[in-house]
Amino acid sequence: MLVRNLLGYRFKETPKDCVIDSHALMMKGGYMKFMCTGSYSLFTPTKRITRKIEEILREEMDRIGGQEVLFPVVMPASLWEESGRYTSIGSEMARFTDRNNAKMVLGMTHEEAAVHLAKDIAKSYTDFPFMIYQIQTKFRDEPRARGGLIRVREFTMKDAYSFHTSQESLDEYYEECYKAYERIFKRVGAKNVIAVKSDSGMMGGNISHEFMLLTDIGEDSLAICEGEGCDYKANVEVAECITGEREKTDAALEKIDTPNIKDIESLSKKLNLTPDKFCKAVVYALNATDELVVVFIRGDLEVNETKLRNYLGSEIHAAQITEDSGIEAGFIGPVNFKGNAKLVFDRSLKGLSGLVCGANERDKHFIGLDVSRDVGDVSYVDVAKAFEGGICPCCKRPTISIKRGIEVGNIFQLGTKYTKAMNMTYVDTDGSRKNPIMGCYGIGVGRLAASICEEQHDAYGPIWPMSIAPWQIEICCIQSEDGEIKEVANKLYKELGDKGVEVLYDDRDIRAGAMFADADLFGIPLRAVVSRKNIDRGVIEVSSRDKSLKTEVEIGEAAEKLGELVKEMLNQSILNPNSY
Amino acid sequence: MLVRNLLGYRFKETPKDCVIDSHALMMKGGYMKFMCTGSYSLFTPTKRITRKIEEILREEMDRIGGQEVLFPVVMPASLWEESGRYTSIGSEMARFTDRNNAKMVLGMTHEEAAVHLAKDIAKSYTDFPFMIYQIQTKFRDEPRARGGLIRVREFTMKDAYSFHTSQESLDEYYEECYKAYERIFKRVGAKNVIAVKSDSGMMGGNISHEFMLLTDIGEDSLAICEGEGCDYKANVEVAECITGEREKTDAALEKIDTPNIKDIESLSKKLNLTPDKFCKAVVYALNATDELVVVFIRGDLEVNETKLRNYLGSEIHAAQITEDSGIEAGFIGPVNFKGNAKLVFDRSLKGLSGLVCGANERDKHFIGLDVSRDVGDVSYVDVAKAFEGGICPCCKRPTISIKRGIEVGNIFQLGTKYTKAMNMTYVDTDGSRKNPIMGCYGIGVGRLAASICEEQHDAYGPIWPMSIAPWQIEICCIQSEDGEIKEVANKLYKELGDKGVEVLYDDRDIRAGAMFADADLFGIPLRAVVSRKNIDRGVIEVSSRDKSLKTEVEIGEAAEKLGELVKEMLNQSILNPNSY
Repeated sequence: MLVRNLLGYRFKETPKDCVIDSHALMMKGGYMKFMCTGSYSLFTPTKRITRKIEEILREEMDRIGGQEVLFPVVMPASLWEESGRYTSIGSEMARFTDRNNAKMVLGMTHEEAAVHLAKDIAKSYTDFPFMIYQIQTKFRDEPRARGGLIRVREFTMKDAYSFHTSQESLDEYYEECYKAYERIFKRVGAKNVIAVKSDSGMMGGNISHEFMLLTDIGEDSLAICEGEGCDYKANVEVAECITGEREKTDAALEKIDTPNIKDIESLSKKLNLTPDKFCKAVVYALNATDELVVVFIRGDLEVNETKLRNYLGSEIHAAQITEDSGIEAGFIGPVNFKGNAKLVFDRSLKGLSGLVCGANERDKHFIGLDVSRDVGDVSYVDVAKAFEGGICPCCKRPTISIKRGIEVGNIFQLGTKYTKAMNMTYVDTDGSRKNPIMGCYGIGVGRLAASICEEQHDAYGPIWPMSIAPWQIEICCIQSEDGEIKEVANKLYKELGDKGVEVLYDDRDIRAGAMFADADLFGIPLRAVVSRKNIDRGVIEVSSRDKSLKTEVEIGEAAEKLGELVKEMLNQSILNPNSY
Repeated sequence: MLVRNLLGYRFKETPKDCVIDSHALMMKGGYMKFMCTGSYSLFTPTKRITRKIEEILREEMDRIGGQEVLFPVVMPASLWEESGRYTSIGSEMARFTDRNNAKMVLGMTHEEAAVHLAKDIAKSYTDFPFMIYQIQTKFRDEPRARGGLIRVREFTMKDAYSFHTSQESLDEYYEECYKAYERIFKRVGAKNVIAVKSDSGMMGGNISHEFMLLTDIGEDSLAICEGEGCDYKANVEVAECITGEREKTDAALEKIDTPNIKDIESLSKKLNLTPDKFCKAVVYALNATDELVVVFIRGDLEVNETKLRNYLGSEIHAAQITEDSGIEAGFIGPVNFKGNAKLVFDRSLKGLSGLVCGANERDKHFIGLDVSRDVGDVSYVDVAKAFEGGICPCCKRPTISIKRGIEVGNIFQLGTKYTKAMNMTYVDTDGSRKNPIMGCYGIGVGRLAASICEEQHDAYGPIWPMSIAPWQIEICCIQSEDGEIKEVANKLYKELGDKGVEVLYDDRDIRAGAMFADADLFGIPLRAVVSRKNIDRGVIEVSSRDKSLKTEVEIGEAAEKLGELVKEMLNQSILNPNSY
């Protein structure tokens, strides 16, 4: 491909709305064009990258026995009514009415479609297990589209669905898929992807993992144990929060005046006590009934709303405290609480004494609170966010570290949620009818590409791994108006093409600096520079985009050598079975 | 792939709603599952077929310099408001409102998206010409979904858009693309695809061709000249209709009583005159104003509504004649016409005499009508449907034959319709700003697959061409419980796999008849039968699905020979440059 024929243009200024590097570089490099919130058209380089990722996904899905299928993007609402998600999912799902007034939805995931396809076909236990997958467009009306291709509304996804007759079979396949995912992330060249336990959210089911590409700009917080020999990793959404034990004090409960001091920060200053010496109250309301929920938690910790939601079994929102609630905002505490609310005690308060808390009276607080002594026999639940330096639930050392990551893949054990709701059954060995058990496995293609760019770039552009690079080699022909230079470059272009190497060829008559700036934005792993200076010395200059290689090859041997280099670099990322 | 692992099932009974063979066979063969009107999930065999078609499309688009891109399926309505099509397209376009109340549409074609992508990027005449294409999901809310994958609402399409600075450049590229299409249809193994001139419909522009796969179940009627040396081919929608000249009679205009005889058939019997001796009236109304339009046409011909619509420059519908219209339904004629309507005279009436027509009075007709003598100086237009035996506009012989076809591809010269409306400009050599000229080029992937099945099948199943077959060879292992037979078959499966041959392996312990019935439905081009009878003679039976080949190969040589056969058959359809 000739750069001068390539549609797309590259520019220097970082667009205003780009807050992360990959987004800025992919805009500046002519990878995509903004169409509307969370929606981009993709230029050829991006399409070439995503096709390579898709091919790797296909190979690894086929390798674990997957069968590629294709579900419709537009589905009848009735299918989603069967599963119950037509009502349980909110405005994230795009809906419309067709010409015959039938309600339709745009697929944001395809569990319903997978069950629809397999139902009445896999009828006997002998037909199981099996896995079907597709690589297809999805639309989610995301409220928080951001970061270029990192979080969009329309995207291409590889989604796979497995069906089983026993939990053991699912466990086994889940493990196989887990390993396939590890291979996939290695093969596409991602360097820092880890699997963490996660919340199943709207998918239903219990066990699930997210594959997280670690980066400071990630939206997800991860609790990772850094203790030697410990492998604990979890999304903060589900991570257990364990605080250390603390010595008991025998301070008595005493009411103090705290005129107009409603927040921990001020009171903490006034009393010269750190926030962990407080019992904080955080107030929510149930979405369904508006019933208030007051969470008491150690003052330095935050409520983990996912865990709270799961504990309550209900959606919640931050509550407005009204006058008639009987609750004294700013002075809420567990002793003498009189309002009409459900009380939740976070586990961080268990066994603590000498705490400060609200006295449920205007301008009054208690000091010397001992929760079990003064409140009595309450049940404690874990609804606190895991924190840096917290105790690892696995190895019990205070080695929890909080990192950030982008979710680049996920695997869920769905159980029978969908097969039950949609009445998919098979006949088991004993003649009884049962619902198959499902797993589902997703990877967003565009997000993966952008995440790799986020992980591997410098100030000048992306550094694409060889396995997914839009082209494998870029030839820069400096001073293409010089016939001899052009001829050498042309010949190299042709010879590499004949060898099946993917070459981007820049023969534009522009300054070397401008050409190299563009080349940095293209991010092609290998670069061959044909210039007067080099030709005079009989060589072509070869370097790698990641700067690990800088060498020269004789002109006569250039195509051969470059071809070998490409193969080597591909082997590193793809073919060497020892690499995964 | 093992048949026993393949999701999908095959059955004998033709489903009630299947009126064409390909639809029935693809349902019976487990190729797809109905989801809702015009929408199917595709099983693995279909997905494998469509991926091969897509790969051929990609190669041929790349060969003519195409750059693969990806546009969103969901687009903002504003983009379609710019082009004017948000209002000009009716209920075929699915529309919805997103969470922010923005109007969105589902892409049924992507001219707007192509202009959006290229606009502000191709700025100078030196950036032209270029072509971008995508292979992507489309949704059209078709009122007439039918025939399985032949006409669906959701489908995968290869759509390409070229941009030019001159009509000559477009003409040249249009021709290149025409040839690429010829190669594509050859390579996918379609046997009877012809290009015909067509109507541009909602696409705008002037010159356009449709590629039609000839089959009796085709929805489109084609006028094809069968005269030797003549190459005239056109969609009947646009085909010129030329009737022969006829001898003048000097019969006088005479009013006759025709009590209660309102149709040509009855009057034709009563007067003992064939329908071509009549001047028929057909009444339409303009959609926009409800103004009536009366078309006078020779009695044996039909009105071509596409040509009439294009002539009137307006959408039309069949009219209801009301009492206050002043028109006497059943007795309408061009003499003494008094109603309030626009009159259109089809060219077939030009120079005719001795005709029967309505007298615009209840129960009265005229005989002896000479249109030019009795009606006067009217302008004749061509709004009649071309007919079998009509005169060829090209070679002027009465050699027009009417055939039916399925549209499997189309190419349009769009002109500046979209670039003007959406204000895409470039700076020309003389410094002036101009709108680029566009062409667009589409092929529906699933429809092409189904059309090939329609063209190439027998009573038992599809006969897939080697280039797009889901697998290249099927191994039928008869009596797989016999260890020796199973071993020979397993070995062949493995050896072929190692050679990179795509094999579907049926090792199920079922009757040979049932296995062959399934094999016929799979439609794999080559079949290798491993059975006791064959093994005892040291051979494997090899046959082709199209019955052109039936032979035996020695067991030891089977993998080698079969591998060669596959290559040969692929060469025939794909690689031999002389084949196109």
